[in-house]
This record gives sequence, C-alpha cells and structure tokens, in this order.
Amino acid sequence: MVRVAIVGATGYAGMEALRLLAGHPQVEVTYLGSHSQAGQPLAAVHPGLAALGPRILESPDAAVIAARADAALLALPARGSLALAPDLVERGVRVIDFGADFRLRDAATYAEYYGGAHTAPGWLERAVYGLTEFHRPALAAARLVANPGCYPTAALLALWPALAAGAVDPQDVIVDAKSGATGAGRQLVQSLHFSELAENLWPYKLGGAHRHGPEIEQELAVAAGRPVCVTFSPHQAPMARGLLATCYARLCQPWDEAAATAHYRSAYAAEPFIQVLERELPATKATLGSNLVQVAVRVDTRARRLVAVAAIDNLGKGAAGQAIQNLNCVFGLEETLGLPRVGLMP
Amino acid sequence: MVRVAIVGATGYAGMEALRLLAGHPQVEVTYLGSHSQAGQPLAAVHPGLAALGPRILESPDAAVIAARADAALLALPARGSLALAPDLVERGVRVIDFGADFRLRDAATYAEYYGGAHTAPGWLERAVYGLTEFHRPALAAARLVANPGCYPTAALLALWPALAAGAVDPQDVIVDAKSGATGAGRQLVQSLHFSELAENLWPYKLGGAHRHGPEIEQELAVAAGRPVCVTFSPHQAPMARGLLATCYARLCQPWDEAAATAHYRSAYAAEPFIQVLERELPATKATLGSNLVQVAVRVDTRARRLVAVAAIDNLGKGAAGQAIQNLNCVFGLEETLGLPRVGLMP
Amino acid sequence: MVRVAIVGATGYAGMEALRLLAGHPQVEVTYLGSHSQAGQPLAAVHPGLAALGPRILESPDAAVIAARADAALLALPARGSLALAPDLVERGVRVIDFGADFRLRDAATYAEYYGGAHTAPGWLERAVYGLTEFHRPALAAARLVANPGCYPTAALLALWPALAAGAVDPQDVIVDAKSGATGAGRQLVQSLHFSELAENLWPYKLGGAHRHGPEIEQELAVAAGRPVCVTFSPHQAPMARGLLATCYARLCQPWDEAAATAHYRSAYAAEPFIQVLERELPATKATLGSNLVQVAVRVDTRARRLVAVAAIDNLGKGAAGQAIQNLNCVFGLEETLGLPRVGLMP
Amino acid sequence: MVRVAIVGATGYAGMEALRLLAGHPQVEVTYLGSHSQAGQPLAAVHPGLAALGPRILESPDAAVIAARADAALLALPARGSLALAPDLVERGVRVIDFGADFRLRDAATYAEYYGGAHTAPGWLERAVYGLTEFHRPALAAARLVANPGCYPTAALLALWPALAAGAVDPQDVIVDAKSGATGAGRQLVQSLHFSELAENLWPYKLGGAHRHGPEIEQELAVAAGRPVCVTFSPHQAPMARGLLATCYARLCQPWDEAAATAHYRSAYAAEPFIQVLERELPATKATLGSNLVQVAVRVDTRARRLVAVAAIDNLGKGAAGQAIQNLNCVFGLEETLGLPRVGLMP
Repeated sequence: MVRVAIVGATGYAGMEALRLLAGHPQVEVTYLGSHSQAGQPLAAVHPGLAALGPRILESPDAAVIAARADAALLALPARGSLALAPDLVERGVRVIDFGADFRLRDAATYAEYYGGAHTAPGWLERAVYGLTEFHRPALAAARLVANPGCYPTAALLALWPALAAGAVDPQDVIVDAKSGATGAGRQLVQSLHFSELAENLWPYKLGGAHRHGPEIEQELAVAAGRPVCVTFSPHQAPMARGLLATCYARLCQPWDEAAATAHYRSAYAAEPFIQVLERELPATKATLGSNLVQVAVRVDTRARRLVAVAAIDNLGKGAAGQAIQNLNCVFGLEETLGLPRVGLMP
Repeated sequence: MVRVAIVGATGYAGMEALRLLAGHPQVEVTYLGSHSQAGQPLAAVHPGLAALGPRILESPDAAVIAARADAALLALPARGSLALAPDLVERGVRVIDFGADFRLRDAATYAEYYGGAHTAPGWLERAVYGLTEFHRPALAAARLVANPGCYPTAALLALWPALAAGAVDPQDVIVDAKSGATGAGRQLVQSLHFSELAENLWPYKLGGAHRHGPEIEQELAVAAGRPVCVTFSPHQAPMARGLLATCYARLCQPWDEAAATAHYRSAYAAEPFIQVLERELPATKATLGSNLVQVAVRVDTRARRLVAVAAIDNLGKGAAGQAIQNLNCVFGLEETLGLPRVGLMP
Repeated sequence: MVRVAIVGATGYAGMEALRLLAGHPQVEVTYLGSHSQAGQPLAAVHPGLAALGPRILESPDAAVIAARADAALLALPARGSLALAPDLVERGVRVIDFGADFRLRDAATYAEYYGGAHTAPGWLERAVYGLTEFHRPALAAARLVANPGCYPTAALLALWPALAAGAVDPQDVIVDAKSGATGAGRQLVQSLHFSELAENLWPYKLGGAHRHGPEIEQELAVAAGRPVCVTFSPHQAPMARGLLATCYARLCQPWDEAAATAHYRSAYAAEPFIQVLERELPATKATLGSNLVQVAVRVDTRARRLVAVAAIDNLGKGAAGQAIQNLNCVFGLEETLGLPRVGLMP
Repeated sequence: MVRVAIVGATGYAGMEALRLLAGHPQVEVTYLGSHSQAGQPLAAVHPGLAALGPRILESPDAAVIAARADAALLALPARGSLALAPDLVERGVRVIDFGADFRLRDAATYAEYYGGAHTAPGWLERAVYGLTEFHRPALAAARLVANPGCYPTAALLALWPALAAGAVDPQDVIVDAKSGATGAGRQLVQSLHFSELAENLWPYKLGGAHRHGPEIEQELAVAAGRPVCVTFSPHQAPMARGLLATCYARLCQPWDEAAATAHYRSAYAAEPFIQVLERELPATKATLGSNLVQVAVRVDTRARRLVAVAAIDNLGKGAAGQAIQNLNCVFGLEETLGLPRVGLMP
C-alpha cells in the first residue's frame, strides 16, 4: 500500500482526492492536513465524509507527513506549495502539487501572474508537468509533479495532436472554455452565490488576463516544437462541475474531418481515459465524477479552421483524478487504479 | 465472480447499475438486455459508456440470460417483470427486480395502482421486499427480490425505528418527499423538459394518488406491527438526482430530540450505509452517486410531533445501489462491495 | 405620482422593488438608500441596473427621505427598521417595512426570535400586517405596514380560508415549505455557494426554530379566531426564486376536494393575484417575477386531512410585489398597478 | 390601440410575446392562434396564463386574423410562415415573422438549410431584416419583418460596429455562442430532458452545420460592405434562458480596449436597449425577461484579436422582445413601449 497524505483536504480538489482514494485498492490515506481547519474532525468539512471513519485534520507539518506518508497530494492556494513541496521532496516524499507553483518553467512569468517572485525557482526545472498522457516517461522518476490546471488539461488534450502533427498554425489558436463553479474553489464570492450564478453565464478575464493562458502556451509549445500564441477566454457556466474547451486553430494542411479524427484516434489509441468521439460531440456530464476525457474534432472547410473540443470533470481529470493517475505512474501502479472511467450520467 | 445480467440497461436505473458494477470486484456483467434498443451497441445509450468496452444490447430472452448469468437485475417499466421474473427464477437465476411488480403483498392493491390484474400473484408472497436493513435474513435465501421504490426507501428508513419502537401514532403519519427528475425516468414528458423544470418546483399526485403510498403503508405496518395510515405528498424538485423525505408523526411517548436521536443511532449502529446525523440535517447531495443514506430526527415539542428526515440518491440507495446491496446479500458477498459510501460533494 | 424611497436597495428584495417600480405608471423612485454602498452608483449593485439611469445610493437619513418621498420601502436586515420606521412615520412618510421588526404583535416573542428586546414596542399594535388580501380595510389608513415574510405569505394564503371556515383543527397544522436561495438574501454563506446548493436540497431549522413559525401562528390565529399550533419545516431548494408551501391540516368537517376547492374559489373570487387551481397543482415558476399566487387544495379522505398548497415568487408576492400591492392600497391607487400577473414561464 | 394577433401562441416565443404584450399600454392582443391546440383555452398552454383572462386558441385563418388584427406575430416552426405571411400581408396585416422563412436573401441558401425550396421567393427581397438597431428606416414602412434568430441577434450586435468600422478582417471571424434550452423550443428531445441537461454543457452543429451561420454571414456582410466568413459554434448550456456570444476577429488596425470600447459606446449611444460595459463583462442573467443587450469588447494585443461579447435573453431581444420592438417601429409607437430594460436579477 502506498501511504498518501492529502494537504488541503478541505478544499474541493482535496475532498475529491479523498473521495476517489476511498476506492483505490493500493493506496491508504494516512494523513489529512488543513491550514484552516486543523484540529477539526473530517466530518466538519462536510458531514457525508464521516462515512470514511473518524479522522482528524492536522496542521500541515513536513516532518510529520514524511514520517507517515510516501506521497503527498498538495491541494493548496496559489503560492501555498512554494516552501512545502521542496521541503517534502527533500525528506523523501513524492509530491503531486495540484496548484500552479511549479507548472511554469519561467520564474518571471510566474511572478507576473501569481503575485510576486517565485521563492524556489531552482525547482521549476526539476518538476514534471503532470499531463499524464504526454509526460509518462518523466513521471516514473518524478519527485515533484506539477499537476496541470483544469483549463490547460482540457485545452492541451484538445489541441496537442494537431499541433504535434504540424497540422495547424501555432500563431492562430483560440481556446474558448466553459467551466463549472467548483473550478473557482470553495471561497465565497458574490458572483458565485447560488442566486447569482443560477441561470447565468458569463466570460471573465478575457484578452490574456487569466493565469492559465501562459500555462497553455508553454505546453502547446512543447507539442508544436515552437512558440504558440493563444487567445484564451474562460467562461463561468451555471453548473457545479464540468469543463468544456472549444478550441480553434487555422489549418495549414488539407485535413478534413475524417482525417483529423483518424489522427486523433491514432494519437490516443492507447489512452485508457481518452475517448475520441466521431459522430457525437463531447458533453461535460459524461465525465462527471470520473477521470474520463471526451475529445472530438471538426473542420470548418470554408474557413480552413480546425475546431477541437475536449470535456472533462474539472475536479476529475482537471484536478484530483489526474493527480491520482500521476500518483499511479510515479509508484509504478496500474495507471487506472481508483479512477472511474464512466461519469455519473444522468 | 458472480455473472450478472442487466435487463433494461438503457433506462436510468439500469445505466446506474452498470456504472456501479463497473467498480465491483466480484461481479461480471455478462448480459445487457434492452427491449427498445436491442441490437445497438452500448455506446448508443450514451457515448460515455463506450469506456466499458464494446458491448451489444440484446433482446431480453430468459433462456439466454439463464445460460449466461447467475443473477438478473430487471430495470423495466411497470408490469414489465410480471412474466420475466418468474421465468428466470424457475431457470435458476436469482432475480432482483427494480420495479413494483412484486413489492405489494396484496394483488388487489397492485391491480388498482398498476393498471390491471397481477398475472403472477402466487409469486407475491415468495418475493422478498429488498429494504436491505430490515430484511437481511430473508435476503440470504431469496430467489426473487423486490427492490423498494425510491420514495419508500427514504420514507421507511426515516420512520421505521420510530414505528418499531411504538414511539409514534401509526394513524397520524405524513411523508412530504422531494425528488430529482431521474426518479421519473428517461421517458420524455413536457413538465420534465429542461426549460420547464429549471427554477421550478411542484407537488404532484397529492391526496393518495401516488403508487408509492400503499407500498410505504405496507412496510411501515411491518415495522409497527399494525396498520399504518400515511398521507404521502411527492414533489418534483429542479435537480437530476436526490430524494429527501420529510416525515411527520405524532409522538405517543415523551421523546425529546436527544432520546429520539439516540434511539436512531442505536437502531442503525451496525449499518454501513446509514448515517444518523445529530447537529446537521440530511442534504441530498451528500449522497450523490453513492449508496449513502443520511437520517436525522427532530422533535416539535409543543405539537408533540416527530420530524424524521432521510436523504438518498434516488438512483443509488433508491434503485441501483440498493439492488447491488441486495445482490451482495443474496450471494453472500461483503455487503458493501462495489458501493460508494461518499457522495459527489460538491 | 407617488414619490417613493427604497432603503436597502442593494439587497435582493430592494433590487426587485426597484425593478418592479420601473414599470409602475404612478410611482417615481426618488431616493435610493444603502448602508453598505452609500455613495456608489446604482450600477455598482449590478451593472444591468444602469439601464435605469445614473443614480447614486445614499446613506439612509430620515430627514432627507422625508423631504423627497411620500413613502419608504424599507428592505433592511432584522432590527434595521426598529428606529428608522417610527422616525419616518413621524415625519409623515408612509412606511412599508419588508422586514420582521413590526410583524409580531408580541414584543416578547420578537425578543426571543430576533436577538433581543424590541426597542419600539409601542409601534407593534399600530403597524398593519400587510397580507393584502386579508387586511385591506386597515391598509387604507396605515402609516406603517409590516410586509409579511415570504414563508408566512405562502402558508397563510394556503390555509386561511380553511381555518376561517372552521374546516380544520387549529391544533393540527403542518407547513412543509420549500424556498429558492434568494429567500436567504444576498449575504454569502457556504451552503449557498453555487457549488454546494446545485443539485442539492435540505431542510433547516426544523422543530420550531425558524423565525417565521410564530408569525404564521399569529396570523392563522386571526383567521381561526383562536390559537393555532403549527409545525413549520423550511427547506432550501436548488433554485434562485420560488417558494412552495405544502400545508397539512386535520379536517373537522366532511369536505371532499370539490367542496374544498369551491370554498377556496369563493374566498378568493375577487382577488386579482390569486389563482385557485382545480385540476392542476401550483408550480413556483408560474409565478416567477410576478405577484401571482397559485393555490390548490386536495383531500386525503382516508386520513381526513386537507393538503393546501400555495406557490409564490419569494421576491414577488413574498416580498417586493406584495409591498407594492400594499403601497397601492395605502395611496388609494389601483391595486394591480406595476405588478405582473404572469410569471416568466419558461 | 394596435390590434395584434399571435400565431403560434403555445410555443415559448409566442408565450413570451403574450407575457410581454400584457404590459404594453398601446397594444391589444385580439387573436391567439395555434395549430396544435386550436380550440383549447389559453390556460391549457400553461395554467399561469389564466391570469390573462379566458381566451381560446384558434386554428390559424388568414381571413379571421385580417378581420381582427392590424398586425400578426408569427411564432411558427421553420417553413410555417411561407404561405401564411404573404397571405396576411396581402390582406393588409403587418407581419412580424419570428421564424427564418424570410430572413435569408438567397433562396438557394434557404433551400439548403431549411429542408427544400422556398415557395415564396419573391417575398425575400420585400422582407425587412428586423435587427432593429440597424434597420430602423426600413422598418417604418415594412409590411413583412423577418425577426432575427437568437444567435444572429447576439453575434451581430457584438460584431457590427467593428466590421462597419473596417477594424477587423471579415475573413477571420469566429462566433462561439452559448444558449439556454428555450432556444431549442418546446419540442421534447432526449438531450433536453431535465435529467440530461442539468449539470451538462456541450457544443453542437460545429463546423458550419447550424442554420444561423449563413444568417450571421449575410448580415455581417451588410455591416462590412463585403463578404464575411464566420466559423459559428453553438453550445447548449444548462439554463432555461440566456444567450452569450463570444466573438473573435482579427484586428486590421491598432485598436486597444479603450479605443474599441469608445467606438462601441459611440455606435450604440442612442440605443435604449444596448448597454456597452467597460469594466464589467456581459452576463446573461442581467437580461432575463427583458429586451436588454449587454455588450463589451476586449483586445488580445499579442494576438491582434478583438474579443466582442454580447448577452441577451434568447426569448427577449432574441425573439419576442425584438419582435415587439419592431412592432413599435412599424406602427410609429415609442420604441421602448412594453419592453423591460432591467432583467430579473437575481
């Protein structure tokens, strides 16, 4: 059994990791850390968790974690892992960080988007970006995994095969994404009050302001082998979970839908969690509560434009699900352990 | 491995059984039957199910089922199991019927509420009513399990301990229940069109018209040891899943909340899926996608009235979850196998 | 033109009053007060209100209000009107108070439920309880109208005709009510975060703990001519607006559904906003954004129990709509002015 | 008083026209036509409409309509107005057609997208495209108004000022739009069953397959003065009403956000229903139940791309609201009569 600590267990991603790991046959959750609710029983987070037995949330302490766990899942706010993650790694704990502290290669970009200088820049190149499907070799030996953001996960899985094939122009890419409210976390804000989001839908941080923009560009550049310029538009949709990325890219070769779909089918043929649809289109609810990804591609032939779509559960493949997938890779376990492939539909 | 057939795999309860059994370590689903979509691939039901592999829906045939399965879960419309269930049992297949065809002991009541005479009345007394917590001894030897309705499951689990203790007047009981839309099934009706149910809530079949009324009374009478009269009021709430029963009964002994709660805690102490809350109250989402039941009791001392509340997922403990719990009992498996105890929250 | 001040214009009920009065042909809103956002433009409350023109929220001041307005709608938190309402009335301003500060006749009950002694108890008997349909004569001369709570409005309109007719036992009444989230106001709380209320439903303050319980009992006693004992159970439903009260009372005379319905039809025959349904049942969305009330009665003959149901928009007839209806009465205007009778369906 | 007939009064757009006209001071609805429910009372459509008084739905008959009405609003399925609209116009009735039968100038395109040859092609050039803001002069004399589709309304209002100014490349335009379920009408389909759309979001008809694509291109070409190529991607969002169009176009001049916003503010300065936001972004609920349009523009300077967003109520400005706005224009009434400018928020 791999002994796992969850730090930040009272946030939505931490809770989802806990829920999923309850069904993982080779993992034991041995530590639950929370800054805000240390000392409280787990059931204080939400009563339904009492079914997991009497557990106490602890104030995060690297030494205690290292004594009790082989791996730590860090589900902390931005900047919350800067010190803790390296500390744990140095104590021999494998770390999978849900946050953005070690996702960006460039410390200056981090400083610009995440409120100040990176305090552990030497670790940026040692961290493995945990988009499992495209970084498996590195994951096996990883000490510190930077789990991708929810928007990047969907955008990258939608666009990677096209960019990797050189089929589209890296300078002409748009990601129009729609997310459920859990993507914004548990913190209370007026616009996410039920009365205000119900029957409502809006864009936010248009024109390059969202933190996930540079993350998407960084990784698409890995796929393309050269710089990529993305216009990224996130939207808030009136649902708790689910994330759909509708991506547009100018074709620079004569792909029709059949060719594009065949390329994607081939690229993802061995992937246990990626379903490339042909006649149907992705729908977020098909992924609810699971690690499933639905992908489809369409071609607007008149405009010579590829439309690539991916749907995920933002707390599943977009956060806790992918973290567990990475955990399985890091420890050499079967990659699908503990991870549902069928969503809660309806 | 227990080989299981699902008949009616394209309805919501059948789909949920399929989803849950995909994670059951000692069950193999060997047959998928559908009257309406026989010959279609499973993915035609909904594309996300393709993740379970290439499966074909078959036209239900008792001989074929008996050749391939040890047990059959029948998720069919009313009257759909009248012939099939006895046929399967006689061929040696253990049957768990999701529908109402074998729930009522009284054939005349069945005829009144379910559109005509019961055509296999001899089987009514041989069927075991599958409210697992109160019928375990009979379940072990059951050939035909009548899985309870969703409303009865919540109402019975809320009221049973009080009636069994003689604490409340069996002639003065009200069940005011609120259900998500999946309880009404997959069939299209105007009032369940998204545009009409969103931001809407209404009662229906008030005053004794709903089929689940006599089922609740029959089983509460088992608990009480004498006849029970229930006013049952179902409501449609704007959510896909979740069922809450708020139950009222006149106290005939001086219980306060502490005493009532202690009695319920004791009654359900050994139950793996029932959580008796004290300070908190049940909330449907705590049970989403799981077999969890949340129960709480309150006392209106001025009115000498017990208010007992239960929350379930109508497709979980209210249908497919409880069916799998019963399947585990029938085959002597650990009762919790394949059944999540933590809901998808948030 | 009646000049109207809205104090508390940034809360949901104040905003709804503003929205409705924008379509009132004989009212001019001349003052907008807000404690929390004084000095801000109206559009800061929400951008869509900019369509009402450039307005500034002012710090509430009785002298200024008296100089600019004939009437004041006070949409303030509990205890917020204790001083302001009498002050305004003494300056000649007719006050319609949305809150509970002057609803209860009994100062001791107020103190018990609303956090301490009432500081203007002499005004309790001078205030008119603004359930328009049953207090019209007093409203014409009212200086201070205590606008009913949302739950009481629905419960009273559902039960009043039966109690007034002596048809049901005043000691055996239950109100099981379901409300949208706007009923809890704009203030942020964890359970009303979109991610937690979506696909969720729960009861709260069961067993006599909710403030609206004594208000319902007080007014039902007016209807019955003697004390009434009510078990009141509020529920939170996953919708922004809408309130349904399902009420149960023991019949003490042999009413069937036809007789009960005929009695209600007769009682509400002249009411412009109350629709007594026969074959259909009330649905909250039929009232969305309007002052409409849908009422229906059913009889459970075996249990000799009346089930009376009312649906309203909690911000319409349950708050701002009824306040404007009362405003019309106080100023001798046509009672329906500015008030839609058709909800936003779908 | 203008006497108005509504034909197709039982569909969502027809119902909304009826609801809005109930508050119009200079219109009297004198005729309600329905093919499917002729002979039924209005309340059969939905019970809340009974508040409008006892009305009977009539089988549509041009002679009867002409005898009783000055104008007809036709809210019929595709191809439903091909014969009726010209017939009514020839009888002297001004027609505002909600459908697509007279929106496209090109009969061949109509035939391709709407299931066969246009049977009254001579009327295509006589119809006025009813995007009020850009066709007012023609509307004053119009006999037949082709009311725009919901998606085109939002897309055109978002993009028109930029294209008219020559600020963006007409060959590089994307419209990524998200709509509530009422946009798909009242007809029952599996994917719009509440249980399947709740907590779900998906794209459909990507790559040029949606009927509104050529309509958007036709009118944007009017704005640009030359052909426009649009990639149009509609999405279904889990809400009943509301439509947001997020539009992307390559800038061909050096606009920053301030310049773009100033241009839009100027272009819409005199428009009573269009609100150009600066710091905020459009949100669909701000428009709920009203004729309001919220517009905002952003610039992705690195990609030299304009992002223009518009939010409407698809049944308001996207259908019935704009139809009434056009009705007001055709009859020389004040354009804002009967049309709310503030949405139902929250």
